[in-house]
Amino acid sequence: MTKIKIFDSTLRDGAQGEGVSFSVEDKLAVVQYLDALGVDYIEGGNPTSNPKDCEFFERACSLELKHAKIVSFTSTHKIGGDPKQDPSLTAVLEANTAYVSVFGKSWDMQVTDILNAKLEQNLEIIESTVSYLTKNGKTVFFDAEHFFDGYKANPGYAMDSIRSAHKAGAKALILCDTNGASFPFEIEPIVAEVVKAFPGVEIGIHTHNDIGMAVAGGVAAVRSGATHIQGTFGGFGERCGNMDLCTAIPNLQLKLGYDCIPAGNIEMLTDTARSVAEAANIGLDPRTPYVGTSAFAHKGGMHSDAVIKKSSSYEHIPPEAVGNSRRVLMSEVAGRSAILLALKNVDPSIDRGSEQTRRVLEKLKEMEHNGYEFEGAEGSLEMLIRKELGRFTPHFGLDKFNVVVNEPSEGKSSIAAVKIYVDGEHEMSAAEGDGPVNALDTAIRRALGVFYPELKKMSLADYKVRVLGSNDGTASKVRVLITSTNGKKTWRTVGVSTDIIDASWKALTDSIEYFLSTVR
Amino acid sequence: MTKIKIFDSTLRDGAQGEGVSFSVEDKLAVVQYLDALGVDYIEGGNPTSNPKDCEFFERACSLELKHAKIVSFTSTHKIGGDPKQDPSLTAVLEANTAYVSVFGKSWDMQVTDILNAKLEQNLEIIESTVSYLTKNGKTVFFDAEHFFDGYKANPGYAMDSIRSAHKAGAKALILCDTNGASFPFEIEPIVAEVVKAFPGVEIGIHTHNDIGMAVAGGVAAVRSGATHIQGTFGGFGERCGNMDLCTAIPNLQLKLGYDCIPAGNIEMLTDTARSVAEAANIGLDPRTPYVGTSAFAHKGGMHSDAVIKKSSSYEHIPPEAVGNSRRVLMSEVAGRSAILLALKNVDPSIDRGSEQTRRVLEKLKEMEHNGYEFEGAEGSLEMLIRKELGRFTPHFGLDKFNVVVNEPSEGKSSIAAVKIYVDGEHEMSAAEGDGPVNALDTAIRRALGVFYPELKKMSLADYKVRVLGSNDGTASKVRVLITSTNGKKTWRTVGVSTDIIDASWKALTDSIEYFLSTVR
Repeated sequence: MTKIKIFDSTLRDGAQGEGVSFSVEDKLAVVQYLDALGVDYIEGGNPTSNPKDCEFFERACSLELKHAKIVSFTSTHKIGGDPKQDPSLTAVLEANTAYVSVFGKSWDMQVTDILNAKLEQNLEIIESTVSYLTKNGKTVFFDAEHFFDGYKANPGYAMDSIRSAHKAGAKALILCDTNGASFPFEIEPIVAEVVKAFPGVEIGIHTHNDIGMAVAGGVAAVRSGATHIQGTFGGFGERCGNMDLCTAIPNLQLKLGYDCIPAGNIEMLTDTARSVAEAANIGLDPRTPYVGTSAFAHKGGMHSDAVIKKSSSYEHIPPEAVGNSRRVLMSEVAGRSAILLALKNVDPSIDRGSEQTRRVLEKLKEMEHNGYEFEGAEGSLEMLIRKELGRFTPHFGLDKFNVVVNEPSEGKSSIAAVKIYVDGEHEMSAAEGDGPVNALDTAIRRALGVFYPELKKMSLADYKVRVLGSNDGTASKVRVLITSTNGKKTWRTVGVSTDIIDASWKALTDSIEYFLSTVR
Repeated sequence: MTKIKIFDSTLRDGAQGEGVSFSVEDKLAVVQYLDALGVDYIEGGNPTSNPKDCEFFERACSLELKHAKIVSFTSTHKIGGDPKQDPSLTAVLEANTAYVSVFGKSWDMQVTDILNAKLEQNLEIIESTVSYLTKNGKTVFFDAEHFFDGYKANPGYAMDSIRSAHKAGAKALILCDTNGASFPFEIEPIVAEVVKAFPGVEIGIHTHNDIGMAVAGGVAAVRSGATHIQGTFGGFGERCGNMDLCTAIPNLQLKLGYDCIPAGNIEMLTDTARSVAEAANIGLDPRTPYVGTSAFAHKGGMHSDAVIKKSSSYEHIPPEAVGNSRRVLMSEVAGRSAILLALKNVDPSIDRGSEQTRRVLEKLKEMEHNGYEFEGAEGSLEMLIRKELGRFTPHFGLDKFNVVVNEPSEGKSSIAAVKIYVDGEHEMSAAEGDGPVNALDTAIRRALGVFYPELKKMSLADYKVRVLGSNDGTASKVRVLITSTNGKKTWRTVGVSTDIIDASWKALTDSIEYFLSTVR
């Protein structure tokens, strides 16, 4: 099996994506996730671009990594400049990584129109930058920016640019589709030419997704002999993003027989992708191939039915192979099989054609019409089913609550007072909070804790708000999704209302009832 | 220029995507958006799957469409069944569309293991279904489900399945990569074989994105002679979604010289994509090629600088070509050029190296560190700059506010009381609302309206909440993004706090100040 080096640029090119931002702690965490997965190179950033990156390199040195090498990033030095005096190159030497990526121009137009330099001068700075760094003990990767656009415009010059880097000692030559608009059928022959011209040299591919071809371009390059792919986890990156390594790695390893990461580790892919996205503080698109939450989610009725019968009907791999899992979604187009599974969970005697199944389906449709979504809110779905089947005995009831928010405030702005009852006994409690929902959440737990001390074991793991059809501004309907956990089991519940407090209350009530009915 | 027929399945296959749901009104709106763009066929749904689709077909008949044909969707009838007695086929005839898509099996394993039928029986039902519909005056598209997996397993049988449909009068044969795991280099030769075997017949391609190759597969098929592509707007669909027509159309039309939609209409692409996503009530991934809000957004400092100098440096097409626009983002990795543009907007005398530029950059970094994002919140950015430059005179100040939420409630649950001052004059007001934010919003406008009657012209167009780092449950920090409009101009502002009321208050204040300072 041919080994393909995996070069991750989530912390550098990924951080250039809109909405992506990493603290130093986040960056260090990402390095550890990627190292555990078995990625070869991790580009950490540009040590001169901001103080955060400097601190990162300082602290990254002390990480004990099993597999990955940290890479710092810089450009060629200025035209007519001296590498020894160049602040970026000095910063890179100080960053103290054994590996350095240097990007330089390979498109003639970029040299003349952006650098305002002669073509020859650009080749000189490539050579002098790479040779300065190699002489200082660094292993250098040369990123040939705009290589494919450059090759189409002036193939000889594009080849000269990488030849200069190679002569100066670059270990790998990375062909970048910087503007992200090359088709795989264009990349394939160009990479083949480069591989032929540089026998035995590590040729890399770095693509962007501006025409939706980043992964396809990466795969095409590997089929032409590239042995190093650069991308990001989740495909984050400038504009439409970079080649998504979460797609490229399993494509190459599970489908095409290349060796990207240690074979046993591919099952960690989904966890790694989600942890990186969490660190980036950006939601992973649910439809992300292999690792997205919808990647193996079946909604169409016939699909749901068939996939339960035989998984390969509508699944190209077993979801477990990449650490993901199958989900059969509830919805108006879902078949009865999916809902039947949830029904049988509550009452094993129910069958497909029964009156109860029909009634639950009706109720589901009605609630979906009002903005509910039970996809991924299995706690609320189970509560709904129990109610419809007459198998629900509430553990508590609400007399009333009242929340007051005062501004300006010192510290917590909100106070909630609640009165609830359990078996005819009434209990009041109050709590302060960061905002009204937090105050209400704390007060209700305090009051219920008198009757159900085990509620201490349950906590909120996540709280999400989605504004639905936002044309009504602050009077729009909102959907609140709450994730709760007792440390072992996790469950999700949903509430919808035009009032965020009311929506939160509904989701919270379902969550507590679910805990008291089935988990504790 | 070869004409490629555009077949949109957003309302059928797209609706099978997780989180996608359309009301009948939404569906009718989507038909009109797509018709205006110049799409050829619009698949509306399966008339038997739910009452919503039946109502849709009833009402769709009365739409006056300029270009598009509505298509209904069904499967082959049951093994051993009679087409005349089949409820799905009856529903399709009643749906009254001139065009019908029929899907049938072309993978031998699916016939034997899912239908539990003999291979020959499947060919019979394909033929009898297609011929029944054509005899009843319908133009039939045959969707060969799992065609590529089928072809790899048993090419002869896969070809027999489409041959049966063709013999029975199908107008077009659609090759479906149902499981979404075929590479373009696999699709290309198979489509070429089919095109050779059925000279002059309309061959279509329908791909899914499970390995990130849906658009690449579609383009490969067209290069092999397919003249009909099926996909969805925004790529919505089962699991990882379908071929995204928003990417496929400009790829084929702008890059490869095919004729997909009327040439002048391609500038409507971004608007159409966003309107369809709005109707689907699902956010379009900002990184969506061509039409996403980030598709031409530049954040890396060097990129921002260069793209201002020469747009083709980091843009593969002018964003206006597809109706999108360039955005230069503010952020810690952004160069000074981007911020300079915003600064110069406030004070044209400021330059790149000035002390003010440095100070604003510092402040921006600090606020981003606290969870702010000024990307896409130009109103708050301008307020921040004005404050830092000493060019801000507040139009009002807050004495205090108080919001009370009471449950259970009849109607509006919340009452807000605010006291503000303008030029030393104090004014109180109160309002009820659907939830605390709505009450506060209404009360503040009422109080300020005494001094600034022009505030009536300003309204909230959108209100978004994002929970940041949600590990603290209901005590997590939230970011509120408010879009305001005066009907002509639209501006966005942001507020961050652990308290949703406080975050909303900050965004609302910026929005009103922005209106009073620059818009009115």
